[in-house]
Amino acid sequence: MDLAFARPGLISLAAGFTDPPTLPVRATRRLLSELLRSRKTGEPALQYGTTAGLPELRRRTAERVERLDAAALTTADARTGRAARTYLREDLYAPDDWLITNGSQQLLYLVTEALCDPGDIVLVEDPTYFVFLGIVQSHGLRARGVPFEADGLDLRQLEQVLASLKATGELPRVKLLYLVSYFQNPTGTTTSLAKKAAVLALLRRYERAAGHPLYVVEDAAYREMRFVAEDVASALTVPGAAARVIYAGTYSKPFATGVRVGFGRLPAGLLTAVTRIKGNHDFGTTSLTQHLLAGALASGEYQRQLAPLRRRYAEKARVMAEALRRHFPADVTWREPEGGLYVWARVPGRLRTGVGSRMFRQALDQGVLYVPGRLCYAEDPPRRAPDREMRISFGSATLREIAVGVARLGRVIGEFI
Amino acid sequence: MDLAFARPGLISLAAGFTDPPTLPVRATRRLLSELLRSRKTGEPALQYGTTAGLPELRRRTAERVERLDAAALTTADARTGRAARTYLREDLYAPDDWLITNGSQQLLYLVTEALCDPGDIVLVEDPTYFVFLGIVQSHGLRARGVPFEADGLDLRQLEQVLASLKATGELPRVKLLYLVSYFQNPTGTTTSLAKKAAVLALLRRYERAAGHPLYVVEDAAYREMRFVAEDVASALTVPGAAARVIYAGTYSKPFATGVRVGFGRLPAGLLTAVTRIKGNHDFGTTSLTQHLLAGALASGEYQRQLAPLRRRYAEKARVMAEALRRHFPADVTWREPEGGLYVWARVPGRLRTGVGSRMFRQALDQGVLYVPGRLCYAEDPPRRAPDREMRISFGSATLREIAVGVARLGRVIGEFI
Repeated sequence: MDLAFARPGLISLAAGFTDPPTLPVRATRRLLSELLRSRKTGEPALQYGTTAGLPELRRRTAERVERLDAAALTTADARTGRAARTYLREDLYAPDDWLITNGSQQLLYLVTEALCDPGDIVLVEDPTYFVFLGIVQSHGLRARGVPFEADGLDLRQLEQVLASLKATGELPRVKLLYLVSYFQNPTGTTTSLAKKAAVLALLRRYERAAGHPLYVVEDAAYREMRFVAEDVASALTVPGAAARVIYAGTYSKPFATGVRVGFGRLPAGLLTAVTRIKGNHDFGTTSLTQHLLAGALASGEYQRQLAPLRRRYAEKARVMAEALRRHFPADVTWREPEGGLYVWARVPGRLRTGVGSRMFRQALDQGVLYVPGRLCYAEDPPRRAPDREMRISFGSATLREIAVGVARLGRVIGEFI
Repeated sequence: MDLAFARPGLISLAAGFTDPPTLPVRATRRLLSELLRSRKTGEPALQYGTTAGLPELRRRTAERVERLDAAALTTADARTGRAARTYLREDLYAPDDWLITNGSQQLLYLVTEALCDPGDIVLVEDPTYFVFLGIVQSHGLRARGVPFEADGLDLRQLEQVLASLKATGELPRVKLLYLVSYFQNPTGTTTSLAKKAAVLALLRRYERAAGHPLYVVEDAAYREMRFVAEDVASALTVPGAAARVIYAGTYSKPFATGVRVGFGRLPAGLLTAVTRIKGNHDFGTTSLTQHLLAGALASGEYQRQLAPLRRRYAEKARVMAEALRRHFPADVTWREPEGGLYVWARVPGRLRTGVGSRMFRQALDQGVLYVPGRLCYAEDPPRRAPDREMRISFGSATLREIAVGVARLGRVIGEFI
């Protein structure tokens, strides 16, 4: 981000910023104007609230996720002919179990702080969201990567990791598995519901050896940013999972990144601990932005802007895919995105993409910035972190920048091949 | 706060909420409407910014504190005939040294996280801001209280504490001293500039034995909430102090508590560390509220609302003082506030005010809530924490609630005497 800010003219395909023209400037103005029209509605928006968040927003948030889960399960039922709908337990969506945070980032931080002690091990997808690796590192934790396949984690690999940690006596140091389950950052992979259930069941089998619950943090940050595939129900809907799943979502990406409002559902005991820590961090998220989001949900403004938002990102993804087909050498592998903000591309042979690589510097010289794949891999002793991928974002770049940036990048890669 | 929210009819003299009628509902509406009028100014307010904060707000914040410090020094000069004005080094107010946070609370958390390791010792005023004690506890630190007098810390006591920590070999565990220097929460005490300089000099003398810098975190949260006394220059203005002082301020209290924007100036190396940690917490404070504050400062709206705000709190403080004189038994000691939101009262003899005390329960039964003084004292081995004070706030209660609440409280205390 700092690089992108410092060099005008540089095309950044690195930052996870959203598309400026999609930002709801007029809707926000209307909603805030309405909110601040009277002292009756205006004063609470400018006053402290509770640490857990505005009750109305917690309720609307729980309702919204319930609606998403119900719709996803109904679609799945229709396809399979089974009545998975019964998975949906109403008490999953009791507002009191939900917490509002300063972006979902804060929730990830708080949960990690609550569950882990220095030296503990966090299981992550390999590769994973690099900012989460920063959280892990800042708490003095180790991250252990688990490879994944098209529908999510590779169960055999997960079992191997768990078994080897058990064998070395390190399993008690494992507290949680972090899963970016929708259009994963950085790879774009979405985890199927069946896979979520299988992961939870597998973790459960190792709890006795661990000596405590093994939680799954489901990071659903990109859930609403889909433009091709059907939605998938959250891990919360897996029977019996509510006591083990921390569901983390956000309004920042689909509504406005400048309005940092995230949310989550947590098992009861953990919610209490996390709320207490949040009390120490900031005793509550900004009231004004919480009222804004509650208003956007109540008026339907939030829901209404999703369709154009998805169309817009679908178009940007299509433009990026076309540019990739046209400008990237054929032996660079990548997959057409179905949601989220990113394409994950792998260069062939012995080429390197890392911050210290000639390719990265050459790309910068040519005026294009990407996120080196290396940054998305945990420091994992048993394997050397791959250094031949790049995360390319179609989030904030214009259509023209996407086309030009990918062309530049393709030229740079071509030179090295 | 939870108690206050849960019991309607209860008069809360506990919470540090600000006065609802002073909240700038109309000004905020006007500023946001202006900001969101065009996509050009609206989009940046709804997009991610940098972790350190909006450059314009950092600049205006640095300028504002510079202006406050310059004015305070000029007043002091006029009184003493000395040219203290030369203290003011321009590089103290270079915007790059300033950071925007999610309320000043977050800055306190981040600084503590950056400087301290579990088992470390933090020096605090005795009593101090109880939420800071929560931060200390959550990081696994110990807080050591230092008694204070009318103009701030008692230097002999501070020296005694430092000497005894040196004697026991614990001095290397001390990293910082936390000072609420303006209208201290909970006692209302303001630290003089001379006292700040003396504290810094004393700490400096113990740095060799500590083996590292001993920082002063100056919490200036209530600085703008004064209504009687002259302003005092910040500790930053003490010659040579810039490398040792973390200045923490906030717009939440004087502008709107629902808009959680705090700020601080930090020595360079520490600023880098703290910014990196903030990147893990939330990678930056909400853009929308930062733009709002920048607009309020640029338009003069922020500055204009300070005078009526101070008049209002002065009136509320006066009403509370009158009620205290009228309804509190004469042997309860307290002092007329000169700023901030609180009165600190001490009950006589062997009476107790703590959460478990009969007086606290009786007050609740009579429909009035205060903050037990006990909560504001560090867990400090050498002395038993006093349990005979109460923090009473005139912040959010109405004039009538202040009068009625104090009357109820006075009656309860009277019964016990």
